[in-house]
Amino acid sequence: MAKIWSDYVVMGRLGVQGRLQGRLITFEGIDGAGKTTQLQWVRSWLTDTGWARSLVVTREPGGTVIGHHLRSVLLQVDDEGLDDRAELLLYAADRAQHIAQVIGPALAKGRWVLCDRYTDSTVAYQGFGRGLDMDLVDQSVMMATQGLRPDLTLWFDMAPEAAATRRQARAGAGDRLEAAGLEFQQRTRQGFQALAARYPERIIRIDAALEPESLFRVVNKILEPRLKQWLTEELGEAS
Amino acid sequence: MAKIWSDYVVMGRLGVQGRLQGRLITFEGIDGAGKTTQLQWVRSWLTDTGWARSLVVTREPGGTVIGHHLRSVLLQVDDEGLDDRAELLLYAADRAQHIAQVIGPALAKGRWVLCDRYTDSTVAYQGFGRGLDMDLVDQSVMMATQGLRPDLTLWFDMAPEAAATRRQARAGAGDRLEAAGLEFQQRTRQGFQALAARYPERIIRIDAALEPESLFRVVNKILEPRLKQWLTEELGEAS
Repeated sequence: MAKIWSDYVVMGRLGVQGRLQGRLITFEGIDGAGKTTQLQWVRSWLTDTGWARSLVVTREPGGTVIGHHLRSVLLQVDDEGLDDRAELLLYAADRAQHIAQVIGPALAKGRWVLCDRYTDSTVAYQGFGRGLDMDLVDQSVMMATQGLRPDLTLWFDMAPEAAATRRQARAGAGDRLEAAGLEFQQRTRQGFQALAARYPERIIRIDAALEPESLFRVVNKILEPRLKQWLTEELGEAS
Repeated sequence: MAKIWSDYVVMGRLGVQGRLQGRLITFEGIDGAGKTTQLQWVRSWLTDTGWARSLVVTREPGGTVIGHHLRSVLLQVDDEGLDDRAELLLYAADRAQHIAQVIGPALAKGRWVLCDRYTDSTVAYQGFGRGLDMDLVDQSVMMATQGLRPDLTLWFDMAPEAAATRRQARAGAGDRLEAAGLEFQQRTRQGFQALAARYPERIIRIDAALEPESLFRVVNKILEPRLKQWLTEELGEAS
C-alpha cells in the first residue's frame, strides 16, 4: 500500500491540486485528557512518514492573531465576570475568524487540518457545562461555521477526577475554565458523550486513561486506515 | 411642573425604588455627526438640573473591562484581516457582556442609561455597511440582547462628506471603521434611514448639520417632554 501513498504525494507535488480534498480532523476532550500531546504526536507521525501532504496544525481558541487576543480574554484566571452569552459569542467570533483565515483557506488548498478543539467543545462546555440554552449554542455554532463540520473527531475521554490529577501535575496555575470545578467537567464530559452518540460516524471515543505511548498506538490504529481511505478515494477520482 | 420632578426625586431618594422604571436612551449616527458630544451635554444637563435620578453613561463597544479589550481588537487601524462574521460576533459578545454587567443592572435599579451606540449601529454598519446577511445580523442582535430594545433613540443624521470633514478636524488618525471610506458611510447612513422608517416611535432623526450649541437645543426640545412624560407615568403608578 505504501507505494500508492508516495505516488500520490508525487502527484500532489506535480500539481493535481484540484483533486486534493481538504480534511478537518479535530481533537476533543476535557482538559487533562492528553489531546494536545496526542495531536503533536500525530503531526510528527504524519510528517515523518512522509505520506501526509501539507498539514496545518491549529487550535481554538487562539488560532489567529485576533484569536490570540480573544484567547487571553477568555482564559484569564482573574476574569470572574464574563457573562455566559458573551463567552459563547466570543468563542463564535474566534471561530469565524479562524475559519476565514486558517481552516477555510487550508481546506480549499486540499490540506489536512488538525485542530485542537472545535465546535464540539462549544456544545460540551457552553451547552452542557454552563447550561446555556442548546438552541442558542447551536445558533452560535452555525453563525461561526456556516455548517463546516469536521471529517473526523477524536474524543479523548477521561473521568474528570483523573484528568484533574493530570492537570495538577502540570506546571502553572489553572485557567478560568479549569477552575470551574469537577461538576462542571462532569457535565462537559456528558456533553461529549451525547455528541458521540449523536454523530457516531464522525466522533470516535478513545479511552484516554492509557499512558501516552499506549494511547498514541490506539490513535494511530484509528487514524491510519481512515487517512488511507481518504487518499484512496482521491486516487480513484484522480485516475 | 418643576415641583413634580423634584418631589419625584425626593420620593426616589426615600426609596420607592420598586416604582422606578429604568430607561435606555441610545445615541446613534455615523462617526463625525457629533453624537458623543451631545451625549455628554445631555448628561451635564440632566445632572445640573437635578431632576434626573441616577444616570449611567456608557458606550458600545467598550462599556466593560472585557469590552475595552474587545474594542481595541475591533478598532485597530492596522487590523485589515478581521472577518466580517467575526466582527459581527465580537460586537455581539461585547453587547452581551455590556448588558449583563452594566445596562441590565442599571435598568433593574430604575436608572436612566445613556448609551453611545447600540444595536442600530450593528444593523447599519454590519448589515448595510458591510453587506452581511440581514438575518444573520438580526440573529446576532437577538442573541446578545435577548430582545432588550432602547426606549428612545436619537439618530444624529449627517451627510458622510460633512461628517468626514468634521472627523478630519479631530486630532489623531482615523480608526478601522472610519478608514472604510465614504461609500461605506453612505450605506451605513441608509441603514439608519431604514431603521428610522421601521421604528418611527422609537427612533428620532435629528439633523446633525447644525452647530453643536444649536444641535443641543434641538436635542433638549426632543428629550425634555419625553423624560417628563416618563416621570409622570411613574408618578401616576406610584400614587
